[in-house]
Amino acid sequence: LPKTSNKSRVFMYTIWEFAKEDINRVTFSLKVGLAVLLVSLLILIQAPYQVFGTSVIWSILTVAIMFEYTVGATFQKGFNRTLGSLLAGVLAIAVAELALMIGTPAEPIIIGISIFMIGTVTSFMKLWPTLVPYEYGFRVILFTYCMIIVSGYRLGNPIKKSTDRFYSILIGAIVTVAVNTLIFPIWAGEQLHEELIKNFGSVADSLEECVKMYLADNGSNHPVINKIFMEEFPDEPAYKKCLTTLNSSVTIESLALSAKWEPPHGKFRHAFYPWSEYVKVGTVLRYCAYEVMALHGVLHSQIQAPYNLRFIFESEILEATSKAAELIRCLGKDICDMKQSLQSSLLHSVHGSTERLQRAIDKHLFSKDNAKAELNYQGQRRSVDGADGITKIQASVRTEAFS
Amino acid sequence: LPKTSNKSRVFMYTIWEFAKEDINRVTFSLKVGLAVLLVSLLILIQAPYQVFGTSVIWSILTVAIMFEYTVGATFQKGFNRTLGSLLAGVLAIAVAELALMIGTPAEPIIIGISIFMIGTVTSFMKLWPTLVPYEYGFRVILFTYCMIIVSGYRLGNPIKKSTDRFYSILIGAIVTVAVNTLIFPIWAGEQLHEELIKNFGSVADSLEECVKMYLADNGSNHPVINKIFMEEFPDEPAYKKCLTTLNSSVTIESLALSAKWEPPHGKFRHAFYPWSEYVKVGTVLRYCAYEVMALHGVLHSQIQAPYNLRFIFESEILEATSKAAELIRCLGKDICDMKQSLQSSLLHSVHGSTERLQRAIDKHLFSKDNAKAELNYQGQRRSVDGADGITKIQASVRTEAFS
Repeated sequence: LPKTSNKSRVFMYTIWEFAKEDINRVTFSLKVGLAVLLVSLLILIQAPYQVFGTSVIWSILTVAIMFEYTVGATFQKGFNRTLGSLLAGVLAIAVAELALMIGTPAEPIIIGISIFMIGTVTSFMKLWPTLVPYEYGFRVILFTYCMIIVSGYRLGNPIKKSTDRFYSILIGAIVTVAVNTLIFPIWAGEQLHEELIKNFGSVADSLEECVKMYLADNGSNHPVINKIFMEEFPDEPAYKKCLTTLNSSVTIESLALSAKWEPPHGKFRHAFYPWSEYVKVGTVLRYCAYEVMALHGVLHSQIQAPYNLRFIFESEILEATSKAAELIRCLGKDICDMKQSLQSSLLHSVHGSTERLQRAIDKHLFSKDNAKAELNYQGQRRSVDGADGITKIQASVRTEAFS
Repeated sequence: LPKTSNKSRVFMYTIWEFAKEDINRVTFSLKVGLAVLLVSLLILIQAPYQVFGTSVIWSILTVAIMFEYTVGATFQKGFNRTLGSLLAGVLAIAVAELALMIGTPAEPIIIGISIFMIGTVTSFMKLWPTLVPYEYGFRVILFTYCMIIVSGYRLGNPIKKSTDRFYSILIGAIVTVAVNTLIFPIWAGEQLHEELIKNFGSVADSLEECVKMYLADNGSNHPVINKIFMEEFPDEPAYKKCLTTLNSSVTIESLALSAKWEPPHGKFRHAFYPWSEYVKVGTVLRYCAYEVMALHGVLHSQIQAPYNLRFIFESEILEATSKAAELIRCLGKDICDMKQSLQSSLLHSVHGSTERLQRAIDKHLFSKDNAKAELNYQGQRRSVDGADGITKIQASVRTEAFS
């Protein structure tokens, strides 16, 4: 079966490549395996099983649900789970005691109404925009409450039941946190840092690529965006990276949210490290990416400026572009090194080069005419915009409290 | 305490507004309450409890975890859960039987290794890009497997335990699906439809708003984007809507994913309704939004074209803009009505008006000069780009198989 073996070899190779691309993927998988193994062993040996009874399987559930890719996300989920369980436990015990106190005829009605109320209120609350990150916590409240109150009502002794479950969950949570934090931890903060730096590189690359393609294009072979609009442009690798930058807002936001839960680590030795600034810088950078996308749209639009014009301004355009890209890369490197180098000279040189481009266009336009160079074209303005966006990034980076 | 009562009144009013904004939020919350109540009642009455024992609380867990906002998302999660439980059950029983067959010394080792393997493999698989939507399914496999094998090993009789649990989960799933589908269903397809139409409106509005602001600006009061870049522009309501359009890709993609699980309903009476086309149209529309964002950047950039120039071309710019916005709105309306009206005349008029704008600029530039109108400015080209983007949307809409 040479064909099948070939296919399976390709398959294995793809998996190998996927694992090699980011070794953290393998680390994460092995860590999950280890955590469930540890917690299962805890149950398989006699001791905790005799204390907690069947509740002990809750530790497995906790590991499976709480184990997230990054340390921060695990802490966040653990916090949700612990707080949710505690709240639900207190509430359930209070209502159960109340129902018992009032007595038989009203008892099931009180319990029924309370279940309905908890279901409705938690579901409504988790739709509230600021509470959306705690969605999981509300789910935990709901099912823990129902389970404690129902099984308590059925099996009696709700307090014993819920404390057993709470300790089991605690065991699961401790194993999860220990394995996740102590063995090759994958920090959300570090991932966020890398992601943002990568985005800086992508924007700079795609800006340069876009302008290079624009200048290389002699009109003979002009790829107009056709109806299959989303299809990749195979000869534009940086454009694809720029697209991922545009779609990175969700990743960056969730990483920043997770990073807030992480203790100081690695390069990020400050408590209360300003992770939310990463989101802001990411947003500003995305505005630069919008400009690049607009340039890309110009590159592939049906109606084009005369091709010979491109070559007249070639050197000025290239200069402005490379200066702008250099500035973006330098800013990315600054964030990477967590330093602030003085880049006002670089910024001035971007401004200078865009002004030179503008003057060149003015000169060409009005060479035969004594009309004043009163016109600023979108083309120049757009380049200046790039520099403008960079000023904003710089301002934003400055407000960041790098250590 | 007049101050406190005032605060709580504001709080109540905010909640009221939030509920009124989308009445589905209230419906959803009440439905969750109803579902947990129903399933709790099932447990509180004797019958299923006597059959399934303590496993019956799994129905509550299932409701709490499976109940999602839309019908499609519930089906998707239910599918994940059911398939995951089944797979894990079969696997666990097979391994448990194997371990029992082999006998005492190897038994715990086989079970331990199998737990570790399952943890590692499921965690690695859920990182694979195409399997990410089934992330929850892999979690279910992991904890169901561990639970069955561990509790089976501890409590004996793994088959009875796992079938009990499976039936309990089935009860929970049936209640969830019944309540979610039969009582005021919230369809992901409908939400997706509305979302896309809203996006068309947002792009058209923000385009018009941006151009209107550009023309109304006389240079005296020019709001340059300052370092607080993300701050909203309070006098630009449509711009904010455009921003949400740019960030809507995740919403649209997850809604389309959910909508695929829904049976034909309401307006969408076709089986295999092409929901993925909505994602494509949304992407093309987002490209138009990028252009609007670039225009917005021009509006707020430091270096501006002479203000008097704006008024010279005012009528042409306004015409081109309003035609483009009209076309976008018409396309949105077409999608809304699920019809395809012939809009080639509208498209031609957009092209015509952008060409008129171009001629006006040419005429102004070269009136004192006999140089050929050889230059196409970015400004014109950008407007044409808008029309270009629209051609693409139209082409894309045409490929959609509306009934």
